[in-house]
Amino acid sequence: MALSDASPPTQPPLPEALLRSLEAAVGTDNLLTRAADRWPYGGDNSRLHAPPQAVVFATHTEQVQAVVRGCREHRVPVIARGRGTGTTGATVPDRGGVVLSLERMDRILELDPDNRLAVVQPGVTNQALQDAAGRHGFFWPPDPTSAAYCTIGGNLAYNSAGPRAVKYGTPRDNTLGLTAVTGRGQLLRTGVHTTKGVVGYDLTRLLIGSEGTLGIITEAILKLTPLPEDKRTLQAVYESMDAAAQAVSRIMAQPVVPCALEFMDGRAIEMIRHYSEATLPAGAGGLLMIEVDGLAAGLDAAAERVAAAARGTGCLSVELARTGDEVKALWATRKALSPALRTIAPKKINEDVVVPVSKIPALINGLERLGTDHGITIVSFGHAGNGNIHVNLLVDPDDAAQMKAADACLDGVFDLVLGLRGSISGEHGIGLVKRPFVARELGEEALSLMHTVRQSFDPDGILNPGKGLPPATDTTA
Amino acid sequence: MALSDASPPTQPPLPEALLRSLEAAVGTDNLLTRAADRWPYGGDNSRLHAPPQAVVFATHTEQVQAVVRGCREHRVPVIARGRGTGTTGATVPDRGGVVLSLERMDRILELDPDNRLAVVQPGVTNQALQDAAGRHGFFWPPDPTSAAYCTIGGNLAYNSAGPRAVKYGTPRDNTLGLTAVTGRGQLLRTGVHTTKGVVGYDLTRLLIGSEGTLGIITEAILKLTPLPEDKRTLQAVYESMDAAAQAVSRIMAQPVVPCALEFMDGRAIEMIRHYSEATLPAGAGGLLMIEVDGLAAGLDAAAERVAAAARGTGCLSVELARTGDEVKALWATRKALSPALRTIAPKKINEDVVVPVSKIPALINGLERLGTDHGITIVSFGHAGNGNIHVNLLVDPDDAAQMKAADACLDGVFDLVLGLRGSISGEHGIGLVKRPFVARELGEEALSLMHTVRQSFDPDGILNPGKGLPPATDTTA
Repeated sequence: MALSDASPPTQPPLPEALLRSLEAAVGTDNLLTRAADRWPYGGDNSRLHAPPQAVVFATHTEQVQAVVRGCREHRVPVIARGRGTGTTGATVPDRGGVVLSLERMDRILELDPDNRLAVVQPGVTNQALQDAAGRHGFFWPPDPTSAAYCTIGGNLAYNSAGPRAVKYGTPRDNTLGLTAVTGRGQLLRTGVHTTKGVVGYDLTRLLIGSEGTLGIITEAILKLTPLPEDKRTLQAVYESMDAAAQAVSRIMAQPVVPCALEFMDGRAIEMIRHYSEATLPAGAGGLLMIEVDGLAAGLDAAAERVAAAARGTGCLSVELARTGDEVKALWATRKALSPALRTIAPKKINEDVVVPVSKIPALINGLERLGTDHGITIVSFGHAGNGNIHVNLLVDPDDAAQMKAADACLDGVFDLVLGLRGSISGEHGIGLVKRPFVARELGEEALSLMHTVRQSFDPDGILNPGKGLPPATDTTA
Repeated sequence: MALSDASPPTQPPLPEALLRSLEAAVGTDNLLTRAADRWPYGGDNSRLHAPPQAVVFATHTEQVQAVVRGCREHRVPVIARGRGTGTTGATVPDRGGVVLSLERMDRILELDPDNRLAVVQPGVTNQALQDAAGRHGFFWPPDPTSAAYCTIGGNLAYNSAGPRAVKYGTPRDNTLGLTAVTGRGQLLRTGVHTTKGVVGYDLTRLLIGSEGTLGIITEAILKLTPLPEDKRTLQAVYESMDAAAQAVSRIMAQPVVPCALEFMDGRAIEMIRHYSEATLPAGAGGLLMIEVDGLAAGLDAAAERVAAAARGTGCLSVELARTGDEVKALWATRKALSPALRTIAPKKINEDVVVPVSKIPALINGLERLGTDHGITIVSFGHAGNGNIHVNLLVDPDDAAQMKAADACLDGVFDLVLGLRGSISGEHGIGLVKRPFVARELGEEALSLMHTVRQSFDPDGILNPGKGLPPATDTTA
């Protein structure tokens, strides 16, 4: 689905007075108005695209305030944007408006190892922070696949995590405080510089995951974690996903929490077998990649403990990498998957549902059934330790009949997930693409309160309108 | 300070219609109206007391809804209460109203080891949950000192933690979802049954720490953690608090995160020396109690790593307990402190400020100065790994001059803490007693938004009015 094609944008030009106020706020060099310049800021890593009416680059908080105030005066949407690596269209300006790019707010303002914290601007990439923290022996746990390009601001906007979340949590667990600009252009400071604090309501975590609809984050106080001394990598292969999922439950019930517990289903394994050089046992119906980190002393015992939990009914093999090359070889299997999927279905639909760990087998079986019913091939892999499953529907978006079947299939996927006490998104967020399904998961009262909260932060509805929450219904008692 | 003395309450009786509706909601046996019956529900573990106009006991969520709706109709305050172990007067009905005791909602509804979660009613005590989870090899990390008596609902209302928070976090880090009744009597479900989920705003953590002002929690989905296999206990003694605090920073910067990192200052050590049998090196100006947990294999190495970090300039001794008796002997020192303090100053003022770890020496030095200036003896101890310091002002509340000096001193303590980028409460919360100081820590915009959020959840202001936030000021732009 494309919201617009490559032809010139259809939105009317912005009011001249607003353009002048944007220019005054950020300077001529930081304002893009020509169609060709604006174009690249209309899309993200979904297939959605709509060009903004203007693009501005801020370099400090006061500029963000000035931009928001200008847009508010003219009731023009303002869409905060990092590097556009999101997958849900959350930064696509489908209603026009001003894209506020934060990529030039890319300074690490403080790195304070004594207090295990960093203060960063939102445009710092995840990798840049890891590099800087790493020099002091620390890291910031959230590690989305796009870490090299994605920004901290984006990580916070979506509450994006990655494999390490199973041990170290998501951004909500690793952020101490925020500075943000609300929809009224006011400066909001939330949270603390400490790991405890109970003064007032928790607005920090309210902002995290709100996809730029409550405020535009301009500074974040992040909690750092000491780098582990060493790591062990294991690969376990199972005859079925049931067997693999039972192993996940066993692994998560013993005291060594892995720092990665990834899985792929039988179809993913088949693909790797056909499209890469990785070798895997025949008859593999499920595979787990497991990493354990910590102090070097005791790490072998920890890995053995995890390996023991991984073994059991239906386990075909458990391999422990002994050298750096062996680690690479084990991960090569997992890394072969994305290219294989791209070869087969370059425009696959990738969902990121979550279910309780013990429900993974029921989910996988249900997906199999849905795929058969709708004639869609489904490949699943993901973060098993969190029950966060990337469900890939291998479809050709140019085939209308297939896309219709895919829509019906997705509908079934979300019902299945919610029936298993799961959630329709674990780390990608809602944006535009999952918006129609949100009301199935959230109750009426929760949605109604979220809308009033949103209105408190952004009374004129200018902050990324039309994203995250479905339209409000009046449920006032 | 007592809000009322033991004479009969001065509030007018509740409207007869409300009493009838409360009776209809919970039954005659669960409604207390006689002065002597209501009395015990007027206080908590602060020295504040004010009798409620009625006490009701709920046993299920629908009753809580009926009680809130009845109170809303008559604009009568409703104050949720667990076991009254709070220290800030947050459950003291100083404006009258109905105390809604949740102590009879004490069922563990689900214990699901496969998915590492428990679903509990709010009246379950912390200890009862630990016992039940322990039988499956799990625990719930928050561990306030009052664990044996305090309820999960109270732990959530205050975001109460304890020593283990340094490794395992606070209730906000260990809760997946909630069911709550809002001020409109509506049923609100927040969160998920999984460790990831980014659908909608994070109302779960917004409710946690809100002291019953946004909703009354009637069910909680808690995240469980596997019990560690073993533990090592160390005691390190320093010639000064500076030296001890520097050791805390060193300990927190290496990869073995202790599961307890407690400290006491020189004055606390002196007290223990005088009022208990514990032996401590002479000239001790600061002491750390450190615990490390995990897999038995590697734990000695982990303890040694921590011990190495604990050693350094100003360190007088580091002792590792080798047997259960030695562990008990080490903790005996720490446990001797509270009785010693009670002997000297039975009605001491106990604050629980937080500062960044590296600022602990500045805080301790500042406290020393403030104590001297105001003629007040201050004894400090607490959760050093989080920078969460229990500051005890040893005063006699019957001495008016001393209490005046204490007020001035406390004023200085909070200014000192905020100047060090700290927070005025780490785990006790605001309630009534810290309410006058909240606006010093929170910015105008944050406070204004908190008030609008509160109004969304409780439009008539009946949920624990007058607690947590200072009165609203109009800051609408």
